[in-house]
Amino acid sequence: MSKPLILVTNDDGITAPGLKALVEVASQLGKVIVIAPDSPQSGMGHAITVNNPIRIDKSKVFGNIEAYTCSGTPVDCVKVGIFQLLKQKPDLIVSGINHGSNAATNVIYSGTMSAAVEGSMENIPSLGFSLDDFSHEADFIPAQHFAGILIKQALDSDFPDRICLNVNVPKLPLSELKGIKVCRQAMAFWEDRFDEREDPLGKKYYWLTGKFKDQEEADDTDMAALKNGYVSVVPVQFDMTAHHAINKINKWEL
Amino acid sequence: MSKPLILVTNDDGITAPGLKALVEVASQLGKVIVIAPDSPQSGMGHAITVNNPIRIDKSKVFGNIEAYTCSGTPVDCVKVGIFQLLKQKPDLIVSGINHGSNAATNVIYSGTMSAAVEGSMENIPSLGFSLDDFSHEADFIPAQHFAGILIKQALDSDFPDRICLNVNVPKLPLSELKGIKVCRQAMAFWEDRFDEREDPLGKKYYWLTGKFKDQEEADDTDMAALKNGYVSVVPVQFDMTAHHAINKINKWEL
Repeated sequence: MSKPLILVTNDDGITAPGLKALVEVASQLGKVIVIAPDSPQSGMGHAITVNNPIRIDKSKVFGNIEAYTCSGTPVDCVKVGIFQLLKQKPDLIVSGINHGSNAATNVIYSGTMSAAVEGSMENIPSLGFSLDDFSHEADFIPAQHFAGILIKQALDSDFPDRICLNVNVPKLPLSELKGIKVCRQAMAFWEDRFDEREDPLGKKYYWLTGKFKDQEEADDTDMAALKNGYVSVVPVQFDMTAHHAINKINKWEL
Repeated sequence: MSKPLILVTNDDGITAPGLKALVEVASQLGKVIVIAPDSPQSGMGHAITVNNPIRIDKSKVFGNIEAYTCSGTPVDCVKVGIFQLLKQKPDLIVSGINHGSNAATNVIYSGTMSAAVEGSMENIPSLGFSLDDFSHEADFIPAQHFAGILIKQALDSDFPDRICLNVNVPKLPLSELKGIKVCRQAMAFWEDRFDEREDPLGKKYYWLTGKFKDQEEADDTDMAALKNGYVSVVPVQFDMTAHHAINKINKWEL
């Protein structure tokens, strides 16, 4: 039996330790091709490059593993992988391991997760992994352990059509992690703030900052799972229709 | 009664004729503040600016109407509007009128719609408008007519919690438009292709291109409504959870 073909990408860029950690896991379970942004693309959401050309370059950063950098976004990386480099669909797409959580509504802002969502739009089983630790020196060993379990299951099991998985791992040593919980996306939101500064010419500029606040007390959410020491797995789909609101809008005078 | 406060943004940038068309409509129905990108931001999806500072500048492009440019994405514009410029929530957010359709799965790639989704995350009634015509010289009068009807209803009616509306207008004269249809997002996808070219130094670069293909024959989708000469209105929500898949993933050996 030939090895499954696994496309690996991320949003922190080709040099991120989290990508290396994911390549290590994926290459034990399949034939890996890496296509990662040539620069950090955090917070790029589902952006694609339409007003600029895209550059693709071969990279030797993973030794014998076939790897490319892409000048575009994480979603561009997936499109480039499928339609330009492979000219076929891989058996699996994995994205990450992101430096920082992508739980709750962060799925929408996340380049890591948008790459996985793009995979699901092509009906390719896709998983996005994130570790709740922004540090460059983060310990990815616990996240690697669970990534291995989930990638193996995704390859061996019946993967639901046109979905992907949003996997978040708390910042805990492996011995303290309680296992995996399948959950729903929490209703948690950023309370944004703009940090106002002055440049050397006296002109103002702003940094986006803020606090992430969970609005729920339910225990079936990804935020609750993480808080309780579990790895959270949220199946993610891309039908944005608010089906429950169709009747209400139909009552408007239109 | 004081006029409702309406924040107007877009993704084609402050100089786009579609923005001017929307400002004209909105300023007849409320007090308008415009915050638009200082450059085109098509295809930016739900991207936010996290690795760079943001610049905000006052603009006189709309005469007496308060207007600002923002160096960031459409979602940044909404955040800047709420948390920096207004320091309060507006009564309504409108985004567009986009030059080009954002029907079906394009909602996910669209900066126009992501600005509206960001508004819905702040629980502000939000509407994104798009005209199925990429031309700079597009005729926005039919879209303005329907934008007026929908903005009025959004202000006067009970707007469902934490949703926004994805409004798409076919490229037809007003007399040929059959009315408004409330629908669901069609399962339609891009068949991507990368156009390979060579720069003057002989190095390859690529343009993302492709064809958009509807995969459905149902008549309750936005694609069907547009094809039949209706303005499509899809209520949009941001819970990406694939609730139907939770049981299936729970059966995996995790």
